[in-house]
Amino acid sequence: MPDPTCGIARSLEVLGERWALLIVRDAFYGVTRFSEFRSSLGVSPDILTARLTTLVEAGVLARHTYREAGSREREEYLLTEAGRDLMPVLAALGRWGADHRPAAQVLGGRYTEASSGERLSIAFVTGDGRVVDTPDVSMSRSPR
Amino acid sequence: MPDPTCGIARSLEVLGERWALLIVRDAFYGVTRFSEFRSSLGVSPDILTARLTTLVEAGVLARHTYREAGSREREEYLLTEAGRDLMPVLAALGRWGADHRPAAQVLGGRYTEASSGERLSIAFVTGDGRVVDTPDVSMSRSPR
Repeated sequence: MPDPTCGIARSLEVLGERWALLIVRDAFYGVTRFSEFRSSLGVSPDILTARLTTLVEAGVLARHTYREAGSREREEYLLTEAGRDLMPVLAALGRWGADHRPAAQVLGGRYTEASSGERLSIAFVTGDGRVVDTPDVSMSRSPR
Repeated sequence: MPDPTCGIARSLEVLGERWALLIVRDAFYGVTRFSEFRSSLGVSPDILTARLTTLVEAGVLARHTYREAGSREREEYLLTEAGRDLMPVLAALGRWGADHRPAAQVLGGRYTEASSGERLSIAFVTGDGRVVDTPDVSMSRSPR
């Protein structure tokens, strides 16, 4: 992996593959079981097993074992705090897809403040909360 | 690809592979030439060619041909408007990497307002510009 000091590169070590982020998306939508991820994503069991393992090892998902009365033991996958912190990544991807990958209908998830239900969007903001549009933002390498 | 109406899934059709986003990152840092991408990323020429082609076809990068006096024709790759709109995705990934992929030093790029030089961060905001912390945000499937 080039440039181990780059946070973007370090994130992509875990997440730089479409299935990983789609698994995380489905976890936000309430999917917890292997069979549910599989039918939602249409992904092969081998790839799904590999991606779930990577996400568990990276601390994005936690694997829990549970048993309902009369059933055999099952596993479920739940977002950790680090996994929940991926929400801005998904929001930014969803917005870009809606803007630049047109289709008859493109949805990017709906983001709301839990306490108020107010709709939210992802944006660049100054320290005192002023929103700056992306075309007005400069990106540079951080000083080493 | 599962769920062609999902903006996240549609974005990942183009971007769901770590090299693609690292190429876009380097383009923001001013890299334009094949040889520069190659030495920056340490990626094989075949993979780099394939990813650059995908990004050009998706309208994220534009390929330009130019000739400096006395030199042979060269190609350069420049971000399009759609490519520049990926900055929030990189900002969100960089922040996550800095928070959750610890290293001796982790950098995620520096984002500033072009006109003022003010430092910016990526965040969820309400319609009237109030910043909401990620743990207070709910994500749900948009209604179909």
